[in-house]
Amino acid sequence: RISNLFNMIPDRLTQLRSYMIDNGLSACIIPSSDPHQSEYVATHWDYREWISGFSGSAGLVIVMIDSAGLWTDSRYFLQAENQLKGTGIELHKVYKRSVPEHLYWLRDRLKHGDRIAIDGKLFSKAQYDGIEKVMKEKEVEIKTDIDFVNASWTNRPAIPTAKIFGLELKYVGISRSDKLTQIQKQIKERQVSCMLVSKLDEIAWVLNLRGSDVRLNPVFVSYLIITKEASYLFVDGTKIDLQLTEELIADKVYIKPYDALGAFLSGLEKTQKVLFHSYSDSIDSYNQIGCEIKLSKDSIIENLKSKKNPTECSNFRQSMIKDGVALTQAFVWLEDELKKRGVPEYEFAKKIASSRSQQALYHDESFDAIVGYRGNGAIIHYRPEKETCAIIENNGILLVDSGGQYYDGTTDITRTICFDEPTRESKISYTAVLKGMISLSMAVFPIGTTGSQLDALARQHLWSVGRNFLHGTGHGVGFFLNVHEGPQGILSGVTSRAQKAFEIGMVTSNEPGYYLTDQYGIRIENLILCVPSENEGYLKFETITLFPIETKMINFDSMTKTEIKWLNDYHAKVYAKLSPELDEKSKKWLEEKCASI
Amino acid sequence: RISNLFNMIPDRLTQLRSYMIDNGLSACIIPSSDPHQSEYVATHWDYREWISGFSGSAGLVIVMIDSAGLWTDSRYFLQAENQLKGTGIELHKVYKRSVPEHLYWLRDRLKHGDRIAIDGKLFSKAQYDGIEKVMKEKEVEIKTDIDFVNASWTNRPAIPTAKIFGLELKYVGISRSDKLTQIQKQIKERQVSCMLVSKLDEIAWVLNLRGSDVRLNPVFVSYLIITKEASYLFVDGTKIDLQLTEELIADKVYIKPYDALGAFLSGLEKTQKVLFHSYSDSIDSYNQIGCEIKLSKDSIIENLKSKKNPTECSNFRQSMIKDGVALTQAFVWLEDELKKRGVPEYEFAKKIASSRSQQALYHDESFDAIVGYRGNGAIIHYRPEKETCAIIENNGILLVDSGGQYYDGTTDITRTICFDEPTRESKISYTAVLKGMISLSMAVFPIGTTGSQLDALARQHLWSVGRNFLHGTGHGVGFFLNVHEGPQGILSGVTSRAQKAFEIGMVTSNEPGYYLTDQYGIRIENLILCVPSENEGYLKFETITLFPIETKMINFDSMTKTEIKWLNDYHAKVYAKLSPELDEKSKKWLEEKCASI
Repeated sequence: RISNLFNMIPDRLTQLRSYMIDNGLSACIIPSSDPHQSEYVATHWDYREWISGFSGSAGLVIVMIDSAGLWTDSRYFLQAENQLKGTGIELHKVYKRSVPEHLYWLRDRLKHGDRIAIDGKLFSKAQYDGIEKVMKEKEVEIKTDIDFVNASWTNRPAIPTAKIFGLELKYVGISRSDKLTQIQKQIKERQVSCMLVSKLDEIAWVLNLRGSDVRLNPVFVSYLIITKEASYLFVDGTKIDLQLTEELIADKVYIKPYDALGAFLSGLEKTQKVLFHSYSDSIDSYNQIGCEIKLSKDSIIENLKSKKNPTECSNFRQSMIKDGVALTQAFVWLEDELKKRGVPEYEFAKKIASSRSQQALYHDESFDAIVGYRGNGAIIHYRPEKETCAIIENNGILLVDSGGQYYDGTTDITRTICFDEPTRESKISYTAVLKGMISLSMAVFPIGTTGSQLDALARQHLWSVGRNFLHGTGHGVGFFLNVHEGPQGILSGVTSRAQKAFEIGMVTSNEPGYYLTDQYGIRIENLILCVPSENEGYLKFETITLFPIETKMINFDSMTKTEIKWLNDYHAKVYAKLSPELDEKSKKWLEEKCASI
Repeated sequence: RISNLFNMIPDRLTQLRSYMIDNGLSACIIPSSDPHQSEYVATHWDYREWISGFSGSAGLVIVMIDSAGLWTDSRYFLQAENQLKGTGIELHKVYKRSVPEHLYWLRDRLKHGDRIAIDGKLFSKAQYDGIEKVMKEKEVEIKTDIDFVNASWTNRPAIPTAKIFGLELKYVGISRSDKLTQIQKQIKERQVSCMLVSKLDEIAWVLNLRGSDVRLNPVFVSYLIITKEASYLFVDGTKIDLQLTEELIADKVYIKPYDALGAFLSGLEKTQKVLFHSYSDSIDSYNQIGCEIKLSKDSIIENLKSKKNPTECSNFRQSMIKDGVALTQAFVWLEDELKKRGVPEYEFAKKIASSRSQQALYHDESFDAIVGYRGNGAIIHYRPEKETCAIIENNGILLVDSGGQYYDGTTDITRTICFDEPTRESKISYTAVLKGMISLSMAVFPIGTTGSQLDALARQHLWSVGRNFLHGTGHGVGFFLNVHEGPQGILSGVTSRAQKAFEIGMVTSNEPGYYLTDQYGIRIENLILCVPSENEGYLKFETITLFPIETKMINFDSMTKTEIKWLNDYHAKVYAKLSPELDEKSKKWLEEKCASI
């Protein structure tokens, strides 16, 4: 109630609308993205929260002169309802993300020939084309260069200024200049003179640099242009110290101000040709380019980045040992605490992070841990909040999904444990999830096989008991980079992620699950590395995550000999790798968890 | 040598070329199809064979003024080389069917603004669009209405005139008028006034009629127009007797001459709108339509036809008993003969057909049987010829793929048997094929699941031993109609067949295999009917084919308890269903083959 009394939102909307009227705008579309199509954005780009008061991670606002709406998905229905009270912004519940309902809503309210505005930096060329297509029939003018954000946003936070640091060759395996040479070769093959790179993880990967501008993702705000001979990094120069600057210049990477990209693009000579990524480069960049453009749906760098080199692979394996050790310590602590008291979900999430932070080369968590006790585990994107989270007691089912950023790898692991005797019903779910996870882990498949072909392996056992999970089975994982990356994925359908063939070196998550509303969530997740199989022309997966899998919830009658052997072999490996790093108490705990079944 | 001396092909080519010169044509493209995009065509449409001498089932000829080429796939390389000798037609080997290499070949030889001809009846609108796209850059004029075929083809065979017969309701389950009402409802929903149907199996299904115009497919040459109120069947009227004509008229199906379609399409009133199928209706029909056209990629009738109704399902089960009995008799005969003599593959194929023909309601075979002994089994589209086939001896591996057309169903079954002790190597292949076949048979999956999602279930065990098969896992099967039908299929990729969801009543083949060149072919094929599962929202398959599966080649160590149970249950069912129909000797044989393992 108090928050409504002091609600600033109506004033802010009035301010924006007065600017809109002055500029002849009927509507502004305000997304929750940054100019780099990042999953996590810095507060500098949180205009959607500033103008609407809604703080969820996903949501889009449309402001018209006499109405406004927010579109968000089921994770945020309750939160949005509360935060929008008294703002005059109407909540629209999104059930199908594939349908741009907000655009139809807007189109129906616009008059023929109306003018609307978007911040052209925040929309990819492909997204812009989607808007244009819907607005075409009313001949709506879409302005991308009216800066309504800065005009209305008082006290806008600055772009983060965290220092950028270089990664030694022993971590990344391939030098900056070798990566650039490889890319420049492909630039020549594609018959263009240069390439624009807007995705922050791609820039970080190419340059063997990392930053801390965005929570959980070790990237830094920048653009990169790679020409056949040199590269230009558009970034706040104060983030880079002199030594690093000199190293970059030695590799023909020249630093320019972050906001100089537009001028650079406009100044390209007419004879040049730019490789432009429709799905990650912005419509604003597109409009500024002064020469010929070659549109590309895929990304040279994303493809190279996804195939981890041998150094990255062996580092990944090292980071997994540390991650397993940290988790072992956290779970030993939890079991001890639960004998004495209830532990808030939030506290356990913090404990996991602090346990990881004791490990060598730790940088940060790779995402906000999901610690979901009982019914909370069934909320797929649940994140425990300090004030409202549940208290874990020494009974029932707990789902824990967390990951760390280390200089030598990015981790992402889910385990589901049961503190007392599991019910017959939950054992059916757990066993089916486990069998699916093992089935995918053991898969061997010909070169050219895609994630869409393998997806059913992880689901078949759930399906056979009439259950399923409504999320993908796996996503790509970066090397000390974003925990979600492309180009591959394990999911059904005809999307480019589902239809991308696996290649040696790709790291992907393997995470089937099952969720029973208000009861429990079950998910078992390992990271799997694509490696050659014994048979020429065939690939397989190496499971690199190292932490015991709950066996108490398994229906052993439903397991094949092969599946039991897989589990025993896995546990033997986990124990062999982790135990040398553990104190006696933790070692004993691990020995029990890894016992043969 | 003699065949070359008397080769008529050069004369025929000269004749065609003189007509081409008279009509200003630089090239003619000659496919091996009929106006109904049939898999099997009547000799009336065998112009490709007449002009080239090449008699294979698949191949395309392009005739230019001073050169000519034939494009065909690996099945026919040897045959084409022989048949083209002395014709001056160049053989082009097709390895990738997805690339229209012949069109690029032609385009490169044409001059800007050249004029070429195709028989517009033989190319679908989609195929025509493909040609146009390639020819666009040279601004080639593509004539679809220059009748070079009739102009040059002396003694062209007539269109077949086999009688058309009606099927009683006890076979087909839904009356003609109910089917028409159902389709007319959808015509209204799609906001068109009528629909053109060119596919012969679709016409036969709607009208509950069958014919014998084409070998192996019980269809008759015709077109159908369905309007909101009535239907017009374009067919040679002498094929339909008076009683049937009256029955059709009672259902408002009016007969018109086969060649009156064009005039009918041209005469449609401007206010009408035709639903037109880009993938099955011809460019010739398209050009003749005098009113608005709504293009459709899918087919209302194909979708309805694929979902077998309860009567069709129970008839299908009946036909499977007869088919299993016929095969039992044929295999008992073969085993007896082999004790005395070698049996030519061709003779066994004939024996199977004659054994089937003893069964009630038998009409024909559903395709030319593949009887592939030893290395011949590895040739995927092998068909034994009387003069050249191999002699089956009482040792080694035999692959038999055959099927029948009955008034109460269409069958398609493959079994692989071994007459002596199988090698260790062949047992690995056979066991992996069998496990894949069982895995698909046992699949349970949510509504909406596609063939592309399930395909890997049939391949996973082969993949894990570094083997695979290079054909689809399954195709739709008609009810006393074509043995290959859409819209669904079990195969990987993004094609419409792979991406079509299974629905209750669909009958699909389940036929993984493995082929070792010059050694053996292994394939195990059953037909599976999609049925509801015990769990709401989930579907599963019922295996309807009834014939024992070779157990001698199984590595029992590699089989799970569940797989062994499936096989034992299947064999118990086969014995229970077939044995009452068999004489004592065959019954004893079947009992041994169906023994529990």
